[in-house]
Amino acid sequence: MRGFFYPRTPTGQASIIPAPPWYYSGDMLTVEYRTDPALVAALLPPPLEPAPEDPGAVAIIWADWQSCSEGGAELLDPVRAQYKETLVVVRCTYRGEIFSRCVFIWVDKDFALVRGLHQGYPKKLGSIWMTRPHPYGRAAPRLEAGATIAATLAAADRRLAQAVVTLRDVVEAPGFVNSHPMAHHRVVPGIAKGAPDALNELIRSAAAAVTGGPVWRGDASLELFESPTEELAALRVDEIIGGYYRQVGVVWDGGEVLAPHGSGGGVQPPEARES
Amino acid sequence: MRGFFYPRTPTGQASIIPAPPWYYSGDMLTVEYRTDPALVAALLPPPLEPAPEDPGAVAIIWADWQSCSEGGAELLDPVRAQYKETLVVVRCTYRGEIFSRCVFIWVDKDFALVRGLHQGYPKKLGSIWMTRPHPYGRAAPRLEAGATIAATLAAADRRLAQAVVTLRDVVEAPGFVNSHPMAHHRVVPGIAKGAPDALNELIRSAAAAVTGGPVWRGDASLELFESPTEELAALRVDEIIGGYYRQVGVVWDGGEVLAPHGSGGGVQPPEARES
Amino acid sequence: MRGFFYPRTPTGQASIIPAPPWYYSGDMLTVEYRTDPALVAALLPPPLEPAPEDPGAVAIIWADWQSCSEGGAELLDPVRAQYKETLVVVRCTYRGEIFSRCVFIWVDKDFALVRGLHQGYPKKLGSIWMTRPHPYGRAAPRLEAGATIAATLAAADRRLAQAVVTLRDVVEAPGFVNSHPMAHHRVVPGIAKGAPDALNELIRSAAAAVTGGPVWRGDASLELFESPTEELAALRVDEIIGGYYRQVGVVWDGGEVLAPHGSGGGVQPPEARES
Amino acid sequence: MRGFFYPRTPTGQASIIPAPPWYYSGDMLTVEYRTDPALVAALLPPPLEPAPEDPGAVAIIWADWQSCSEGGAELLDPVRAQYKETLVVVRCTYRGEIFSRCVFIWVDKDFALVRGLHQGYPKKLGSIWMTRPHPYGRAAPRLEAGATIAATLAAADRRLAQAVVTLRDVVEAPGFVNSHPMAHHRVVPGIAKGAPDALNELIRSAAAAVTGGPVWRGDASLELFESPTEELAALRVDEIIGGYYRQVGVVWDGGEVLAPHGSGGGVQPPEARES
Repeated sequence: MRGFFYPRTPTGQASIIPAPPWYYSGDMLTVEYRTDPALVAALLPPPLEPAPEDPGAVAIIWADWQSCSEGGAELLDPVRAQYKETLVVVRCTYRGEIFSRCVFIWVDKDFALVRGLHQGYPKKLGSIWMTRPHPYGRAAPRLEAGATIAATLAAADRRLAQAVVTLRDVVEAPGFVNSHPMAHHRVVPGIAKGAPDALNELIRSAAAAVTGGPVWRGDASLELFESPTEELAALRVDEIIGGYYRQVGVVWDGGEVLAPHGSGGGVQPPEARES
Repeated sequence: MRGFFYPRTPTGQASIIPAPPWYYSGDMLTVEYRTDPALVAALLPPPLEPAPEDPGAVAIIWADWQSCSEGGAELLDPVRAQYKETLVVVRCTYRGEIFSRCVFIWVDKDFALVRGLHQGYPKKLGSIWMTRPHPYGRAAPRLEAGATIAATLAAADRRLAQAVVTLRDVVEAPGFVNSHPMAHHRVVPGIAKGAPDALNELIRSAAAAVTGGPVWRGDASLELFESPTEELAALRVDEIIGGYYRQVGVVWDGGEVLAPHGSGGGVQPPEARES
Repeated sequence: MRGFFYPRTPTGQASIIPAPPWYYSGDMLTVEYRTDPALVAALLPPPLEPAPEDPGAVAIIWADWQSCSEGGAELLDPVRAQYKETLVVVRCTYRGEIFSRCVFIWVDKDFALVRGLHQGYPKKLGSIWMTRPHPYGRAAPRLEAGATIAATLAAADRRLAQAVVTLRDVVEAPGFVNSHPMAHHRVVPGIAKGAPDALNELIRSAAAAVTGGPVWRGDASLELFESPTEELAALRVDEIIGGYYRQVGVVWDGGEVLAPHGSGGGVQPPEARES
Repeated sequence: MRGFFYPRTPTGQASIIPAPPWYYSGDMLTVEYRTDPALVAALLPPPLEPAPEDPGAVAIIWADWQSCSEGGAELLDPVRAQYKETLVVVRCTYRGEIFSRCVFIWVDKDFALVRGLHQGYPKKLGSIWMTRPHPYGRAAPRLEAGATIAATLAAADRRLAQAVVTLRDVVEAPGFVNSHPMAHHRVVPGIAKGAPDALNELIRSAAAAVTGGPVWRGDASLELFESPTEELAALRVDEIIGGYYRQVGVVWDGGEVLAPHGSGGGVQPPEARES
């Protein structure tokens, strides 16, 4: 049976995602802010620990992507290539190394959702919008100092977040929170009632290659809104660090297992998972 | 960390799905047909084998669901409760027992997609529509002999299937293809490039309880359409067996592992997964 | 050229809506409440005047529809038949007769939007959800005393309204606000910059026939939320009158012109339309 | 009462579209082709006549827009600014002048639909996708010779059209079909059953200003697909003329009435509208 993920068939044609490498071209808007470090720490299962410096730093990132696999067939049927996402990233420490970690993420296509599951991103569907710079007309900012770029996130018919960034100058890096390899758990609950997880592994994932244009830094504002099914607003904005905008190209081609049993070396007991 | 699936947090509030039991109330339209048994057999990885009788039988099922978890909070915010799905089911034999098996399935909400992954359903997103009987007005059939119910499926902006069933009489069972416990593989590819699956287990899943109304049987027609990303049309319709309509209530509360390494007792080597 | 609305072609096949009569089968949830009568009066252009009794009464109605035109072809392709809507209705007086009037409305399909424009409904797109009673399973209320039915409205990725109604008893009528013929303006701005309206007529529209089941009355709660592009929340809820649920069948087959120049007998000057 | 279109309220805040001028920044992909001139002529109501030269020329255009009104508030909430559209344009002659005319068009937002109605575009909702050039990564073509850009259109869950253009060189103009002012009918059927149109005027509409980048010309392919509710495929592709890609900025600020009674000087009798 062939097919990278599912469904697996004799040809693999129907698989919801083809095998890596996966290619991405897109625009990223990042707002970094500080929250109470205890709120970040509470999202890190052992043996992950908070980052030693600025442990309350959070990055919320909007991205407007076009993506494809080897051969690029998706680019000839762009409904299968284009998607948008919003992700919330914190930092953590594992065995002395600093990692980034996505704690919440929303996308607007199924292939992106499942591709993210493979990488350990806890993806849900959302409605994501982001101002697009354009070189002509008055209905878009030019990509230059003074440009104002806004972004919004909604899920289940509720606005969850909105940000506005006004570009000021070009800097070296789009912040520091999403700049490390990702330490993610890939989890699948056991199929039997109350059983331990069937899969709970800690993995390391990073881009195989990144190219990109100038990193614009700017003034940022960010609002987070309550929802009965989300915990984003709990990561309250205490202090804005900055806003960043960059056009990038990314390649992803696999990660590595850090710990086959993610929760500190043993299978997670059911009572730890859900009351 | 709490939360049945992901993201896991101290409260579990944000988990994309709560723990089972899961409750479903909805309407199901089934069309059973025969295709070439070799086409069904090709979708069954070892050690699954074709059903001994009528091995080319296929059921395509449209369902218009409302669902909730314990407590029913979703019913007070129905964007989180209602979804539609189309699934394609065949039969197989495992260790002498006959199982049903979903080979393709599309839903229109993220919670349904991820809930299905837990159960081993190879879920993608689609656009699913099904005529709804109603007791008043001329814009709906009554639920009675002569009622005509239609259903369509699309994904990635292509129509994939459409069916029409005209109800004739009440019978004992809504066909025979989807009448067994499900034998499903739950798969997660390994995170490292070319690695074997991190999870590839064969599980058994069945409803914990089913209630329902009369089973209507009727005349059915079914059309399947080609798509570059699907293999549904390859399960070509050689002969219609019948159409069925039923209103049901279902409880699902966990399954059991049949084989922890789904592909016949060993981890699937990478060359078997993807060329 | 044929075709009821547009595009008009030699065959009329592509018209976004066919000619009336239009048939509807569906479920309606109504919450009636009182707001400041001045807020209702402010939404009534002259020569419309407030209703003499209970002039601050408002009805917000969720409907889950299946609809079709003569011949019912839409019922065989239900993506073209099913839609949901939320409408906000007040009452007014015109030449001594009491009318209902829809002041805001959202639907989730284009054919419903344009059909509504023909009838003078100020339709926008929204995301509308409403709990569906069902006879089986725990994921739906039965249609009986004690059933709780919820409904939500969102537009442009913001939640605008949510209601919960718990059914108590069967009464004669689903409230009194939406019980009159509609007095609607049909407007099309002039194409030239600053020109008066090209169409601004006051029309009367009513169902040609209504059938339906028992009218359930119940306890209701209603929340309205702010949005920069809406004025729904301004019609604040001062006092809940009641909630109602009913399954209905409706026929619509044309209206009549009350005043060919809606704004009191003359074409509306441009400075009255927009600052 | 204020508000450019509807609903009209004391503040005008809720109007589905604000008054012009309207600004657009976006990317346009055009494929021009020849069909049977009789098919084009059949879409031109009198007194419009076919263009004298190349009367069977058709342009199908995909556009990926960001738009806003005066002040640009939409750009800070981009769900209200971004939309995509596919339009089909032919040419015609009116009183000796050559006009372009949009015969079919689909968009994916309500504000764009209603804004188009004001301009006489026969807008429906559709799902529209178009490859986006990007300067980084392998998931996008660069905007240069050899770039391949694809576009698709679907409505009511059916694929209606798909095109692929490979850019070759820079030319003066993006074709000749969509290069004239538009001659459009704005129609609203009479509200009474069988009544003549309440509005049926022939208007002239053109951009108040256009800026833009290089006009790329390329090799094009185009497929049109049948749908029971569309007549696009009837405009069959006999010969491809060429493909074009351009980034543009557009201002629209009103049109003018060419004929207040569009159908040749008299109100259209009902029997001419619909059998």
